Amino acid sequence: MKKTDFSNLKAIYINCTLKKSPKESHTQKLMNVSKKIMKHEHVQIEEIRLVDHQVASGVYNDMTEYGWDIDEWPSLSDKIMKADILIVGTPIWLGEKSSEAQKLIERLYAMSSKTNDKGQYLYYGKVGGCIITGNEDGVKHCAMGILYSLQHVGFSIPPQADCGWLGEVGPGPSYGDTEWKGEQLDKPVGFDSDFTNRNTTFMTYNLLHLAHMLKENGGYPSYGNSREDWDDGKRWEFENPEYR
Amino acid sequence: MKKTDFSNLKAIYINCTLKKSPKESHTQKLMNVSKKIMKHEHVQIEEIRLVDHQVASGVYNDMTEYGWDIDEWPSLSDKIMKADILIVGTPIWLGEKSSEAQKLIERLYAMSSKTNDKGQYLYYGKVGGCIITGNEDGVKHCAMGILYSLQHVGFSIPPQADCGWLGEVGPGPSYGDTEWKGEQLDKPVGFDSDFTNRNTTFMTYNLLHLAHMLKENGGYPSYGNSREDWDDGKRWEFENPEYR
Amino acid sequence: MKKTDFSNLKAIYINCTLKKSPKESHTQKLMNVSKKIMKHEHVQIEEIRLVDHQVASGVYNDMTEYGWDIDEWPSLSDKIMKADILIVGTPIWLGEKSSEAQKLIERLYAMSSKTNDKGQYLYYGKVGGCIITGNEDGVKHCAMGILYSLQHVGFSIPPQADCGWLGEVGPGPSYGDTEWKGEQLDKPVGFDSDFTNRNTTFMTYNLLHLAHMLKENGGYPSYGNSREDWDDGKRWEFENPEYR
Amino acid sequence: MKKTDFSNLKAIYINCTLKKSPKESHTQKLMNVSKKIMKHEHVQIEEIRLVDHQVASGVYNDMTEYGWDIDEWPSLSDKIMKADILIVGTPIWLGEKSSEAQKLIERLYAMSSKTNDKGQYLYYGKVGGCIITGNEDGVKHCAMGILYSLQHVGFSIPPQADCGWLGEVGPGPSYGDTEWKGEQLDKPVGFDSDFTNRNTTFMTYNLLHLAHMLKENGGYPSYGNSREDWDDGKRWEFENPEYR
Repeated sequence: MKKTDFSNLKAIYINCTLKKSPKESHTQKLMNVSKKIMKHEHVQIEEIRLVDHQVASGVYNDMTEYGWDIDEWPSLSDKIMKADILIVGTPIWLGEKSSEAQKLIERLYAMSSKTNDKGQYLYYGKVGGCIITGNEDGVKHCAMGILYSLQHVGFSIPPQADCGWLGEVGPGPSYGDTEWKGEQLDKPVGFDSDFTNRNTTFMTYNLLHLAHMLKENGGYPSYGNSREDWDDGKRWEFENPEYR
Repeated sequence: MKKTDFSNLKAIYINCTLKKSPKESHTQKLMNVSKKIMKHEHVQIEEIRLVDHQVASGVYNDMTEYGWDIDEWPSLSDKIMKADILIVGTPIWLGEKSSEAQKLIERLYAMSSKTNDKGQYLYYGKVGGCIITGNEDGVKHCAMGILYSLQHVGFSIPPQADCGWLGEVGPGPSYGDTEWKGEQLDKPVGFDSDFTNRNTTFMTYNLLHLAHMLKENGGYPSYGNSREDWDDGKRWEFENPEYR
Repeated sequence: MKKTDFSNLKAIYINCTLKKSPKESHTQKLMNVSKKIMKHEHVQIEEIRLVDHQVASGVYNDMTEYGWDIDEWPSLSDKIMKADILIVGTPIWLGEKSSEAQKLIERLYAMSSKTNDKGQYLYYGKVGGCIITGNEDGVKHCAMGILYSLQHVGFSIPPQADCGWLGEVGPGPSYGDTEWKGEQLDKPVGFDSDFTNRNTTFMTYNLLHLAHMLKENGGYPSYGNSREDWDDGKRWEFENPEYR
Repeated sequence: MKKTDFSNLKAIYINCTLKKSPKESHTQKLMNVSKKIMKHEHVQIEEIRLVDHQVASGVYNDMTEYGWDIDEWPSLSDKIMKADILIVGTPIWLGEKSSEAQKLIERLYAMSSKTNDKGQYLYYGKVGGCIITGNEDGVKHCAMGILYSLQHVGFSIPPQADCGWLGEVGPGPSYGDTEWKGEQLDKPVGFDSDFTNRNTTFMTYNLLHLAHMLKENGGYPSYGNSREDWDDGKRWEFENPEYR
């Protein structure tokens, strides 16, 4: 089978760490593994560390219209709208995605009611995945929330679109740490996890395959899912439930 | 744009109500709305009410090999494997999907490590969605768990792949009820919910579109996601994380 | 400070493993650690492995009244009603509590609308906790669901009422395993986890302390929480929200 | 039975709305119902709207030591430490608690490893609950996350410690709204919900009862739960799991 050319795809990685640059983010280290694959596949890459930006709280596209002095979201949103693939990275705190990840979801949601020229929600045709790191617990729970939100606003989710790393239960080194409690470790923790490496690889390629397929297809046909058509009274093969 | 022909697609609806047939299931009523669209689109439909079957608890494909006298799962599993589209229906209890839905997920999981002839997990190429009803709260939470599990074992999730109905907070009639606390209602509750009807329609069509696209495409290329190839040492463009 | 005498307390452990007896349950092994503390503190202990019983699906106390041939729940429910402390044990599958745990919650819920002689929900005055084991991820997520459900039907939750064990991300031995992939391990996995041992101990003692306190106090006063009084029109200091 | 005197108790309400003052918060309206009961019971009340404060992101008590210019958290934390009862209010977005609520949890977590003079985690002896409003779905899911986090860091959770309001599925007025889509409503939505009023009342009184009981009792005895004692080698009746 001929290898697919992914060079016309654009991906954006959003790191929802609580740490501002230039502090080291463990999640970033795992995001880099996925990013490197994308680079080798000639995908165009954009990257945002959300906490470095002054992003307002709220559920509108530009919160300066709602009493906030500054809101960098509109420019970040533009970058997301240009990408075919969105990958959300988050650390885990108390088994949950970060407040920055939650804020990202709230702001993505702001755009979910706008429609494209087919009358579909704006994120239709884009694909999403997530990369999660913690020191002990919660990759799946965080992924549930993130992937749910992405599909709900219009992204498509390919198989195995989540990946991550966790150590054994209890306090311990985080992904990529080279020391723990003052002691030097032989090698960065998690880097040799076959499970994490495999899932990160599969997620990355599945995002690429589905984004490619959707791009080739011109996104989703609007038959049966155009919000504008529905509002205009179009129902396709939908029939009102029967009153028996 | 020419209308897509969906007649070569197969869909399976699994109702995870706690009520055995012939008891009326509220979830079934909403599933019927989606099913009718599929029928009009000439999709082949299979249907299972899980609680009607003697399905063992466990995480293997055939639990009679693990001490259970009876296990109808293998025959149900065969039906799922033949379908392109899986739609899980569930009621909500205490804000959570039913124990039958959880059992379904456990049994789907049993097959997740088997691979197809490309070396991919078996559910690759299939798409999944969910239909959820409750009387007051929990559609999104249940969808998070169900859609997460489906994508994790290999299903693809199109945009807005969840739909459902909920009444106002507190006790109240369930979807399709025509009486409440002994009083007759004018019409079945929820049947005229524009929101529920629209989401059910969009979910149904998005499942069809993505299943069609994947079928046309022969599923996902195995480049970058074949478990067998990975185990054989193939890494595509993955590189080990750098030890700095 | 004088040591509290816990000998008038009763605790019930319910193991929601998917494995029938006499199959070995990893969760049981960790439950035993808590149970041993209780025994040394002279607490009366009852124990149930749910999957060993023919418990019907549904949300009523006795499902034989709703078309099921057999339902052992009423006798199990009696045992729970006699206990001051309920500890739910569950394995993790795909980041979620087991279907047996979900079934337990559904059946506990059946009794939640009945009231005691103060007019309070029946579980008032009882305390609850949970013990969770998996091989890689999900203790906190499972605890969220279980503890939420327990407090929602009337149990009180002391601090740090969840404990568990998880290995590193990816496949691996489960709690107490002495071999993995055919190789013998030096010692049962997790038994020396200071984190797991400490949390299991703290959970056990906090359940005892709160159960003791509630028992001494005769449970909760019914002032402000009696369902019967509310239904009779009693409102205590509640005032209707103001219409401005 | 003599009515309990709650006048020596202190409660703090933290509203995690995304809207800065003086914008109207729907969640605030329901919090006011609970607050009014507390006032009539002579409880001392403190109140914070988190988004009005410059609270840094992070998991340390004072983020100005970690590169942030401003962090108002330490002064807010002092107020929480003085209270016996913490009530977290949150709106729902996409079925999830707000990013402000998540940030609150992250910052509460920062203090969870510090100990009181008995060697217990600092929040031991305090009780927690939550008030949640949305226009259609998610009270229980948000409560799962919030109550879990509270008990995990040391709070006690009385029965039915969550309350909230939701309208029917789909877009609609929020709690207390007096108009919807430009049309005037007869009365503020949700104010006459017997379910919401009852649960808000029960939650409020159960928090008071448990806080009172714990205060009378001097909090939890440190037998079996003192982190300091555990670290010093004290094990009470805990025994290492048996190696068979």
